[in-house]
Amino acid sequence: MKCTRCRGAAEVQLRAHNSAFCRPCYLLFFRLQVERAVASEKMFTKEERLLIAVSGGKDSLALWDVLVDLGYDTTGLYLGLGIGAYSSRSHDKAAAFAAARGLTLRVVELAEEGPGMAVPAVAGLTRRPACSACGTMKRHYFDQLAIDRGFPVVATGHNLDDEAARLLGNVLHWQMPHLARQRPVLEPTHPRFVRKVKPLFRISEYETAIYSFLRRIDYVVDECPNAVGATQLVYKDMLNRLETASPGSKLTFLQDFLSRAQPELPSANADGPPQTCVQCGMPAFGEVCGYCRLVRETTAKRERRAASGAA
Amino acid sequence: MKCTRCRGAAEVQLRAHNSAFCRPCYLLFFRLQVERAVASEKMFTKEERLLIAVSGGKDSLALWDVLVDLGYDTTGLYLGLGIGAYSSRSHDKAAAFAAARGLTLRVVELAEEGPGMAVPAVAGLTRRPACSACGTMKRHYFDQLAIDRGFPVVATGHNLDDEAARLLGNVLHWQMPHLARQRPVLEPTHPRFVRKVKPLFRISEYETAIYSFLRRIDYVVDECPNAVGATQLVYKDMLNRLETASPGSKLTFLQDFLSRAQPELPSANADGPPQTCVQCGMPAFGEVCGYCRLVRETTAKRERRAASGAA
Repeated sequence: MKCTRCRGAAEVQLRAHNSAFCRPCYLLFFRLQVERAVASEKMFTKEERLLIAVSGGKDSLALWDVLVDLGYDTTGLYLGLGIGAYSSRSHDKAAAFAAARGLTLRVVELAEEGPGMAVPAVAGLTRRPACSACGTMKRHYFDQLAIDRGFPVVATGHNLDDEAARLLGNVLHWQMPHLARQRPVLEPTHPRFVRKVKPLFRISEYETAIYSFLRRIDYVVDECPNAVGATQLVYKDMLNRLETASPGSKLTFLQDFLSRAQPELPSANADGPPQTCVQCGMPAFGEVCGYCRLVRETTAKRERRAASGAA
Repeated sequence: MKCTRCRGAAEVQLRAHNSAFCRPCYLLFFRLQVERAVASEKMFTKEERLLIAVSGGKDSLALWDVLVDLGYDTTGLYLGLGIGAYSSRSHDKAAAFAAARGLTLRVVELAEEGPGMAVPAVAGLTRRPACSACGTMKRHYFDQLAIDRGFPVVATGHNLDDEAARLLGNVLHWQMPHLARQRPVLEPTHPRFVRKVKPLFRISEYETAIYSFLRRIDYVVDECPNAVGATQLVYKDMLNRLETASPGSKLTFLQDFLSRAQPELPSANADGPPQTCVQCGMPAFGEVCGYCRLVRETTAKRERRAASGAA
């Protein structure tokens, strides 16, 4: 097997791209893919300060690595979700990555933001699915931190497998508003929202894993324990079955959707533009934002439990 | 496990419907499902003569059986595709079913319609995928026979699994015109087209198999040999994985699409209404219809082969 680019001995085969690469050409290919995504989708410029949401997994660390390599102005943000050993291992990997490269990593620990605010506690008290509570809190802190520290852009490590699985889930339930919003770049619709971008949206999980391996990035291998049994994994499994039968299908599925089948974004006036949360000042649909509702609910449940325990 | 309807001992469990039935109640449930589909989609009335496309498989025979039972005026149509032993077994089953019930079965053998017109010969000579050649010929004969013999409606045995798999395939490639046309009822757009209906579109393959078993319908069990490796089977497999994880998903996927996500049918003027084939008088997009193009091509290839063999 020869490298598609230099005709040397190839080490990585990419069936989806009908290509094979030697190590140096693979790294070049990967960087080019990211560069093209950033440019073609007008994600950000070298003049903008980027906040990279870093989980300690391969995708977000590979993203950070490649953006540093491409000369972007990056700062990492690690959100400590308080999911036991998984979270501490994730924190260690993210911190070690930043330290070894002299990069800045900001850390926010949910448990320090308020009593009972770690993901398992919030999920347990409010009886919400852990992934739903986690998502609400992540979105809140990403926006709030970016806005408060002057970052116009938050970049996340969502890869092709994530995006294709999300698209499949949205299609299987015909979630039209979600389909309209599933984009590699989401512009802010409120002064306290920032631009959200996914520079790896065309790069598969497999390709990011190879990149991380070749770049010797040390990352958390285990999935979040809350993801076990998650529907998202069923969608990924379905798409992997398809990809095996017909390499490149995931990419076609996502790209064709974005280029010719995506519903229009509803005009800002359709549901009304986001209002401003009376409690925290962040954007809200209603008087209070989703995060503050979660905090209220958690606090109320905690107090009720404490009271009944004391009685 | 108790019958959802009569509280007797259940024999059939339907996880997708969160129900279980004893034999008599299952047959009733099945008939009701078909009756409701026919009524809610305005498929046909008791006054209309129905031509049932019968392959000898469980779906088309179950469809014929239930429509007879519901008192509709039905005639079967068996199209002999000439696919070796599979076709002869299919013909035998269809003929035996009709004979045992005193029903009329019309038979058209492709091989008798013209030399080299059986599916394997056409596919071999024109180098088209067998399923593509087969589809073109089926559509032609269904419409032609219906129109010539005074049937305003052709009913086919497509079930939920077929329709959900087709929908998934159309979505994975974002085939917008195909998505617009995928309906349980397709009204004719030309005087020599008839209405096409799929009364089993909400009933799963599993449910039809159970019905056929309980009604002692003797059908061809083997899949068409040309279907081996067909992408359609990959889509079915993907959906079966989903259905196992989340029963009822196939039905939701199809129903929600039809009720709130289907693109509009293009107006008749968009691509121009179908013209009339100068050769056979059937509808055509262009001067000659797809079937006549296939015949022309097959004939030309046969003659060229015969000439080079004689030279």
